[in-house]
Amino acid sequence: MSEIRLYVTDDLIAGGAAAALDAKQAHYLKAVMRLGAGDEVLVFNGRDGEWRGRIEDLRKKGGALSLVERTRAQERGPDLWLAFAPAKRGTPELVARAATELGVSALQPVTTRRTVVGRVNTERLRANAVEAAEQCGRLTVPAVLKPIALDTLLADWPADRRLMLCDETGGGVPIAQALSAQDRAAPWAVLVGPEGGFDPSELDVLGKQPIVTSVGLGPRILRAETAAIAALACWQALVGDWRAPE
Amino acid sequence: MSEIRLYVTDDLIAGGAAAALDAKQAHYLKAVMRLGAGDEVLVFNGRDGEWRGRIEDLRKKGGALSLVERTRAQERGPDLWLAFAPAKRGTPELVARAATELGVSALQPVTTRRTVVGRVNTERLRANAVEAAEQCGRLTVPAVLKPIALDTLLADWPADRRLMLCDETGGGVPIAQALSAQDRAAPWAVLVGPEGGFDPSELDVLGKQPIVTSVGLGPRILRAETAAIAALACWQALVGDWRAPE
Repeated sequence: MSEIRLYVTDDLIAGGAAAALDAKQAHYLKAVMRLGAGDEVLVFNGRDGEWRGRIEDLRKKGGALSLVERTRAQERGPDLWLAFAPAKRGTPELVARAATELGVSALQPVTTRRTVVGRVNTERLRANAVEAAEQCGRLTVPAVLKPIALDTLLADWPADRRLMLCDETGGGVPIAQALSAQDRAAPWAVLVGPEGGFDPSELDVLGKQPIVTSVGLGPRILRAETAAIAALACWQALVGDWRAPE
Repeated sequence: MSEIRLYVTDDLIAGGAAAALDAKQAHYLKAVMRLGAGDEVLVFNGRDGEWRGRIEDLRKKGGALSLVERTRAQERGPDLWLAFAPAKRGTPELVARAATELGVSALQPVTTRRTVVGRVNTERLRANAVEAAEQCGRLTVPAVLKPIALDTLLADWPADRRLMLCDETGGGVPIAQALSAQDRAAPWAVLVGPEGGFDPSELDVLGKQPIVTSVGLGPRILRAETAAIAALACWQALVGDWRAPE
């Protein structure tokens, strides 16, 4: 069995104070995993690497871990946003989990002209991202940003961030071709549209941005969640940290 | 809204007999989509291309469509199997849907030493594959094969079929590197292991097969379903029909 990894918020410093566990984590370790004082788990906080911690105590309101040793130095994955139009219930959570495994640094829900779902539960997305980060071995948790209108997102777009647009109308360049010899050092974002696709006026505006690379994902129509996972995987394989070190 | 597409089993031939709809399809068109005699939908059977059909009648036990015109000639996607170890409930269906969108020709459930789930509901997988094929615009439905033990699968492996092994231990070559300049004309299969990964003895056997290409999917641990979707997407982008025509 793989080791238990928990995301905590306290600083993790050699000789420092014990790290606090919240009530849910204490309950999980005690009631679900049947662990107690003296047992060891791994913790990370997104800043101080990964540490082996020893359980001091587990109570209803939370618990405490003393730090035994640092097991991994802090590392950052690629600076890669996923901007996506949340589709029907349950799907955004699935996308948040998979995107976390696929190494995104931020999840940006966007509303488009054809976005059907209204309210996005960013707290639940965040919980899914934390759990996926714990399980996939990451040392960071992707930021879950507040939903924003596509127009506003583009108006405030950082000048140096490249944007890979998944164009479901067939107007894009085949993804492997589009991503060969792209700038690996630049920050990136992947943008996936809603069910029903982008409105033509949106594609028009996107097509005029110098930072946009329009890509095609083959001859079949992908659901939004498949497109997001597929696009992130191809990006990681061709541009990101799945590549062999150079 | 995109057009309704239905998979039927009858022959679709100009001037031929009407195509039969089953009870579920007739119910869907009548009760869910509120269609009736004279309305048109698209049909395909995996052999005769895609046709526009006109509803003749819709009854409790089924319906009938007369063929108006052929809208697309039959085409075949890549000859690509997905061999996967079915994980916990619900996940195989998710994989079947996404793999269909990603163009696999066959879904092959495999049992491995660490496969947890027992019975695989191949009928349900088939239903998911049909629905996904209807929605993604394919002209074929992937075959859903009977579950088989990994040993048996390898013992009977066709000599000319390449096998891309997703090696979660980090032993594989980065996928973009491994798939550059691979044989595009050969039949292929993608093999993804169960939760908990392959047993070392299984990786040993796999590593000795001349048809095997071991690939790595980056530094994070992917759940089996994310790995399957990611691997198929990269294969299509680099080897399959997402590439630009040469």
